Amino acid sequence: MGNATQDIENLIELMAKLPGLGPRSARRAVLHMIKKRALIMTPLADVLSEVAVTARECLNCGNVGTSDICDICEADKRATGELCVVEDVADLWAMERAGGFKGRYHVLGGTLSALDAVGPDDLQIPKLRDRVAAEGITEVILALNATVDGQTTAHYIADELEGSGVTVTTLAQGVPIGGELDYLDDGTISAALKARKSF
Amino acid sequence: MGNATQDIENLIELMAKLPGLGPRSARRAVLHMIKKRALIMTPLADVLSEVAVTARECLNCGNVGTSDICDICEADKRATGELCVVEDVADLWAMERAGGFKGRYHVLGGTLSALDAVGPDDLQIPKLRDRVAAEGITEVILALNATVDGQTTAHYIADELEGSGVTVTTLAQGVPIGGELDYLDDGTISAALKARKSF
Repeated sequence: MGNATQDIENLIELMAKLPGLGPRSARRAVLHMIKKRALIMTPLADVLSEVAVTARECLNCGNVGTSDICDICEADKRATGELCVVEDVADLWAMERAGGFKGRYHVLGGTLSALDAVGPDDLQIPKLRDRVAAEGITEVILALNATVDGQTTAHYIADELEGSGVTVTTLAQGVPIGGELDYLDDGTISAALKARKSF
Repeated sequence: MGNATQDIENLIELMAKLPGLGPRSARRAVLHMIKKRALIMTPLADVLSEVAVTARECLNCGNVGTSDICDICEADKRATGELCVVEDVADLWAMERAGGFKGRYHVLGGTLSALDAVGPDDLQIPKLRDRVAAEGITEVILALNATVDGQTTAHYIADELEGSGVTVTTLAQGVPIGGELDYLDDGTISAALKARKSF
């Protein structure tokens, strides 16, 4: 980093720890911030200091927010009896951006993984069972990633909830909007074919 | 961003303005920071607040640091009479990382560009002339990027300094260390051939 004084070097090192940034892009980002001090650096420092203190996980669903119970769990009109199970908070936000879901969420905090020795008790699966009973849930929607671990976890949860009286559903698999068949993997095409609907 | 409360949304928006980050990677970075609060977020907030106040450009060379005159300009032992001219601070840092240069720097703040209407007075070229006279400079090393604008600027500066008594040199062009000929562009190969040396 040459002669950048210690603070600036520390800043670059910390920025380089963020996902998607390496040492080179961290340096670029820091120089950009310093050039745009009033527009980016000062407001970023302020809001970061704020969030570093206030950010917390919702005690109910695991969403990230600035209160003990997140806005979604607080909202009365979202008590629809539908509970959407996601792997992590990024997936929850993706579902919210997509819109269309009016119920509440449950963040697992990962997927079952034999390789990484992640078992059901390392995830929020016991909590899920409790919530299904306590919140009068009628449908659990499994919105897990279409990966091997994601689908293993989905099957495990479906088994766990059997006999509890809730309907367990999962996101449809098929051709993504705007998708071109020639660019899709074979698995997606055959899944879409199997799940074909009358036109 | 769904229900992330306002502060978190602001944080994501500001992060997304950094070069190399978009909305998606900014969200990932923010979630990562929140998960690693003690390790990344709190220290980052502290050092960012610090740097947002203390960062400044060296009044002499244009390097970024936390004092009015940067460490390099302050260091007596770097008054070697050699002045290395670079486009911007990132290039200065790259030179320092490479090591080997013991003189001082001069940051132009860009390159001449007819297209973007950048003339000599928009850059630190008048200042460069002053420093050459005032600091007893004997050699000006042009370490500008090997782009059309960089080389145009180099020629302009060389013309400007003609008659001032300083030697003007430029970085050698040739095959980069570890470079494979088959992957190099034709311009580099012919420049390296023209500048061939006895073995």
